[in-house]
Amino acid sequence: MVGLANHLRDEVALADQLFDELRAHTGDPPGVTRASYGAGERYAHARIAALARTLALEVTTDVAGNLYATLPGRDRAAPTVMIGSHLDSVPHGGNYDGAAGVVAGVAALARCRAAGWTPAQDITVMGIRAEELSWFPSHYIGSRAAFGRLPADVLDGCVRFDSGRTLADHMREEGFDPDAVRRGEAHLRRDAIRCYIELHIEQGPALVGAALPVGIVTGIRGNLRYKHCRVLGAYSHAGAVPRQHRRDAVMAATAFVHALEQHWLAREAAGTDFVCTVGQLFTDASQHTMTKIPGEVRFTMDIRSDDNAVLMDTHAELVATAARIAAARRVDIDLGAYMNAPPARMDGDLRALLWERARALDVPAMDMASGAGHDCAVFANEGVPSAMIFVRNDHGSHNPDEAMAIADFAKGLRLLVGLIESLG
Amino acid sequence: MVGLANHLRDEVALADQLFDELRAHTGDPPGVTRASYGAGERYAHARIAALARTLALEVTTDVAGNLYATLPGRDRAAPTVMIGSHLDSVPHGGNYDGAAGVVAGVAALARCRAAGWTPAQDITVMGIRAEELSWFPSHYIGSRAAFGRLPADVLDGCVRFDSGRTLADHMREEGFDPDAVRRGEAHLRRDAIRCYIELHIEQGPALVGAALPVGIVTGIRGNLRYKHCRVLGAYSHAGAVPRQHRRDAVMAATAFVHALEQHWLAREAAGTDFVCTVGQLFTDASQHTMTKIPGEVRFTMDIRSDDNAVLMDTHAELVATAARIAAARRVDIDLGAYMNAPPARMDGDLRALLWERARALDVPAMDMASGAGHDCAVFANEGVPSAMIFVRNDHGSHNPDEAMAIADFAKGLRLLVGLIESLG
Repeated sequence: MVGLANHLRDEVALADQLFDELRAHTGDPPGVTRASYGAGERYAHARIAALARTLALEVTTDVAGNLYATLPGRDRAAPTVMIGSHLDSVPHGGNYDGAAGVVAGVAALARCRAAGWTPAQDITVMGIRAEELSWFPSHYIGSRAAFGRLPADVLDGCVRFDSGRTLADHMREEGFDPDAVRRGEAHLRRDAIRCYIELHIEQGPALVGAALPVGIVTGIRGNLRYKHCRVLGAYSHAGAVPRQHRRDAVMAATAFVHALEQHWLAREAAGTDFVCTVGQLFTDASQHTMTKIPGEVRFTMDIRSDDNAVLMDTHAELVATAARIAAARRVDIDLGAYMNAPPARMDGDLRALLWERARALDVPAMDMASGAGHDCAVFANEGVPSAMIFVRNDHGSHNPDEAMAIADFAKGLRLLVGLIESLG
Repeated sequence: MVGLANHLRDEVALADQLFDELRAHTGDPPGVTRASYGAGERYAHARIAALARTLALEVTTDVAGNLYATLPGRDRAAPTVMIGSHLDSVPHGGNYDGAAGVVAGVAALARCRAAGWTPAQDITVMGIRAEELSWFPSHYIGSRAAFGRLPADVLDGCVRFDSGRTLADHMREEGFDPDAVRRGEAHLRRDAIRCYIELHIEQGPALVGAALPVGIVTGIRGNLRYKHCRVLGAYSHAGAVPRQHRRDAVMAATAFVHALEQHWLAREAAGTDFVCTVGQLFTDASQHTMTKIPGEVRFTMDIRSDDNAVLMDTHAELVATAARIAAARRVDIDLGAYMNAPPARMDGDLRALLWERARALDVPAMDMASGAGHDCAVFANEGVPSAMIFVRNDHGSHNPDEAMAIADFAKGLRLLVGLIESLG
């Protein structure tokens, strides 16, 4: 051990400068905008690639536009250590969600270069495309494409909310090859990867609450998502129709959401990992009035757990609940199609190694689940041993107010560099 | 008694023809549109006035544009018998809501003329302006103005939803005098009115359910209306924030509406007249997403009862419920301003007379409350003895599908003519 993690002042300064440049070039007050396959993401990829070249790393991209910057190891044929995260952001988002992990990766390789340290195998930093769900309605686009696993209907069926044009169109416009993505051309193979490590800001309040700078992730929650739930009743006069004759869509939707919350409380009481969110719920603006019994409500559901069996069991229960409420209240309740992103478990050996390094390097840390999804889940579910390091961040993410202190980032970087040195 | 009510064939045919003309001239598929102080209402007033002149009735209007067609009685100074309803409709509404009562009134006076019958006092048919709440956000505009009781803020503060212009502007444009309305110039005085009678289609399903053509109204429900209720929480990440840290506006709004429904069930169990409706409920379309905890919900409430003390007691309970839920869920719940239209009781002597006539004339009827508001409530709350006759109507009102059979209208007209003959 040469103690790579003990001297990171220059690399933290480099990271700080990179964050400043990213903020300056992708600012879109309030916050930053780095659209998936758009201008801000393009700038970030170009900036990271330029830095990688000054570090004499091997730089390449795949057919979907993911960026790879590789520090060659002693055995070029050995499975690679990968460090990655994404470079897009939500509209008017914060500067660190995604970018922190890629910046940490290149800062770590800068440290290796500065120390003249050559690893046993290649170490590759991956800048991933299109992780944020806000642009195209499909999860993990870049990382799934890197494994040749992005379904054709995502390429041709998902349109970007702001342009109305397809993912394939936007990919081609940025100079990449959606046809090769459609053919399932893979840049990454599970057997060629030793492990995958992702550093990311925490998106919830746990580390702030615990007053700790770093989290070691135990697993990534999976989710069930229902984008098109609908209750259909009948519009009628708010004063003249007695309760027994009503087909009130708001009262039925209320009963359903109330039942969903009761289900949540029961899961929680049983010690099951579970959260759910009805992010959108609305009567029909073209028909609703204060004095009419509402005939239609639309809503969404986002349900998460670290156990996919729990998610599937919840789905079955919600279908039964919807049928029961619909019959009792003489309405139709259609939950519509759902998407399921399965949960992912982090690798036990890597977690143990992270804990050993955290103690040795005096990085205060805690175990925690990731409530949010991350590209890391794609690697883990491909069978790649995977780990995540969370960095404390105030005010949540996906908003202009996310606040990661550079001192906390330095702690996360220290743990990351310690880990890659331990891996040899 | 000359048996005026026994020979109505010509008057029913006249009414049927008037309904056809109204439908033909104010059609706006689907249904009809007779905007308050707009083209359809203007046509209807002109058509009724023209018919009144052919019947040699005295025709006049007041400063707000209400129409009066008077059959002179033997004692011109004696308090008048009034028959009225409104001639506006909701957008794309049905042909009978409002118009049926005015058509019945002129048909009744046509029968008096045909029989050469002169009443003891004047009988005046009133075509009322602007009863439907859908155009201007204020109730009973025409009838309140007739009594000189329309507040100035309604004239100058209420804008028509389709034009964005004020009630005063629209009144002036139709040739009337909003300044005189603002000064409280009254055309009607309580002491000069013997009674007020309104025939109206039923807007609920009770008469269809009971297989009866006619209802005799016991009272008109009052209402409490909240147009601007708001729950303010905080937007945050749907996956990363545990339940205890959430400030979820949809879950809080659901708890509130659920509590409102529980209150309703308790009122119902206690035998109290009560209905409530949350006609609009919506997250913020500019901010909500499937994967964000919702930070804001807006909703409306419309609550009705025949007892104003119940309404006021419900208001106090809702304020307390909102405060309790807001504290427990760390959100703000603001119910906003409310409007209160007090309930009205129908006159006992008139109801008894209607029942006596219904039995004598073989008109099958039932007692029933009016869930909807009507101009009749304004007369009753001025102290004018008032009564309402409901006519069976399928599919509710305020929609193009309202369906009143002319045979049922004929039964209602028979009862109305019987009543005015009884009044002498």
